[in-house]
Amino acid sequence: MSLENFTKSMLPAIEDELMKAVALTKGPDMDQLNHMLAYHLGWEGEGAGAETRGKRIRPLLTLLTAAAAGGDWKCALPAAAAVELVHNFSLIHDDIQDNSPFRRGRPAVWMRWGIAQAINAGDALFALAYLSMSSLAETTSPLVAYQANRILQHTCLELTQGQYLDLSYEIRDDLDLKAYWAMVSGKTAALLGACTEIGALAAGAAGPIQACYLQFGRTLGLAFQAQDDLLGIWGNAAITGKSAESDLLSGKKSLPVLFGLSHGGAFARRWQSGGLTPEEIPALADQLEAEGARHYTQECADSLTEKALSDLDQAKAGGEAGLALKELVLALLHRQG
Amino acid sequence: MSLENFTKSMLPAIEDELMKAVALTKGPDMDQLNHMLAYHLGWEGEGAGAETRGKRIRPLLTLLTAAAAGGDWKCALPAAAAVELVHNFSLIHDDIQDNSPFRRGRPAVWMRWGIAQAINAGDALFALAYLSMSSLAETTSPLVAYQANRILQHTCLELTQGQYLDLSYEIRDDLDLKAYWAMVSGKTAALLGACTEIGALAAGAAGPIQACYLQFGRTLGLAFQAQDDLLGIWGNAAITGKSAESDLLSGKKSLPVLFGLSHGGAFARRWQSGGLTPEEIPALADQLEAEGARHYTQECADSLTEKALSDLDQAKAGGEAGLALKELVLALLHRQG
Repeated sequence: MSLENFTKSMLPAIEDELMKAVALTKGPDMDQLNHMLAYHLGWEGEGAGAETRGKRIRPLLTLLTAAAAGGDWKCALPAAAAVELVHNFSLIHDDIQDNSPFRRGRPAVWMRWGIAQAINAGDALFALAYLSMSSLAETTSPLVAYQANRILQHTCLELTQGQYLDLSYEIRDDLDLKAYWAMVSGKTAALLGACTEIGALAAGAAGPIQACYLQFGRTLGLAFQAQDDLLGIWGNAAITGKSAESDLLSGKKSLPVLFGLSHGGAFARRWQSGGLTPEEIPALADQLEAEGARHYTQECADSLTEKALSDLDQAKAGGEAGLALKELVLALLHRQG
Repeated sequence: MSLENFTKSMLPAIEDELMKAVALTKGPDMDQLNHMLAYHLGWEGEGAGAETRGKRIRPLLTLLTAAAAGGDWKCALPAAAAVELVHNFSLIHDDIQDNSPFRRGRPAVWMRWGIAQAINAGDALFALAYLSMSSLAETTSPLVAYQANRILQHTCLELTQGQYLDLSYEIRDDLDLKAYWAMVSGKTAALLGACTEIGALAAGAAGPIQACYLQFGRTLGLAFQAQDDLLGIWGNAAITGKSAESDLLSGKKSLPVLFGLSHGGAFARRWQSGGLTPEEIPALADQLEAEGARHYTQECADSLTEKALSDLDQAKAGGEAGLALKELVLALLHRQG
């Protein structure tokens, strides 16, 4: 069974599980809160559909891991919903923090309902994530639910640590690549590691196998972020749905930018003098590429992906789900947006 | 042993437990994040001390309940820290949502570090709360920790539902007392109910006794809020540390205001025409009192307090800790700030 076939059965099940969790907010006078969450998750509002939902990569990764580790992926559905809820809580807060008006082609929650309600909507998703994870007690066992919640708790702390670094780095000039990886480790890799670790846990895999899957998820997270940073400057704007050069315009200290800054050439001089205009961006992206930043970033993404695939072998990912996991890894690396 | 004597041993233990939780954020480059949390919790920054920490009512309630239910209060310390962390997460986000520049006499976190970092600091406390609650596994048992986390998860969802209502009501004109109690039930009573329910759970109390303590905590929460609303208009400004009439100035739809609006007299007419100035506030507070709102609010607080004390009898709260709990209830009702 190919990744596409797995996805076909898993995606509707993920949506159902997410809807079950979000339904917990229902009650007298709760329609608008419920609608905010349904809007953010892509089910309601203008243009609602597959495009506005995002790719659901984290829950897919959780379910595929559960299957590859020898379990029934359906038992891991509460965990899959939980990680997606955590991801979406962080997106709602991110959009406020970064002052980003749009998310998946539509106004962000804070643009539609204001900052106060958006902060609270994020908090509600955060609360729902733990409730969903606890439902693992019904599909697996209370002990597994307890352990999965422990993993999620540590992961959420790491997320806030990574976010703290990200926000601090915006105003710091002394950033190096070591700091970059520490930030990405918290912001992106921690949650992907939780997906694969909890997927394996829900499947009843032994401790050392869970550890291999954790390693796989974390490495994949780093690869994913490096690729994301590359697309943030040289991606296909039509596919990403945002200006291809937006990371240069927004001043984000992504991996290629940090490489360019450490190189100390023409790119670094122009970047450091500030006041970039949209018209300058294409030429500046070319300059950054000429200085080797694109090549460097692609090499990082490639070697991390290779490492992730070898972690997956270590985990003895089996059967068709194991192959589908590999397919997912390669699809993430070769995406254009 | 009086409440004061209990408090004397419990307060330092609560601070230690909170510090243990916050120390989990420590790591390379994490000093500022750690400092933000320590600042908000009143340990660091200008004027740090008992005044800037708040009263720690929720953890005290948790520990006293554990003792009154026949347990060793020290076993409930992780739960006590957890509820205080949840309370403080909600305060950090509240201050942003209400645009309140000060908290406990000092600049709020968002005033000091900006909205982006403040949202994240709140999220970090939210994550730490669950981690702390899970440590109950070490002082009681994994099952108790699991059950306590379930209670906390439902409570946090209720908190966000109450906060959603509170934020919505600011812009609604059709608010009635029923809506008020629904909002307070989520915003204040849910967490106080969690304190007493989890306190009893940690003490190993039987299910029906836990239910009585839950009822006690919830009723106390309603009484507490009614009293808070009264103090928000007629409180002693010197004790509360903010302008005594601030609730009238800020336009907060508190219990006395809703009573006044439902009365449809001179207060309602002036309130509805808007544009209140600080100079008008004392006379408007007198008008509201003349229309019976203060008397009504005090009666609500009194009868809810009486109900809370009877819930406590139902729970068979025992020994000196039981007496100290009663003392705490009466102290909360008779406070001036």
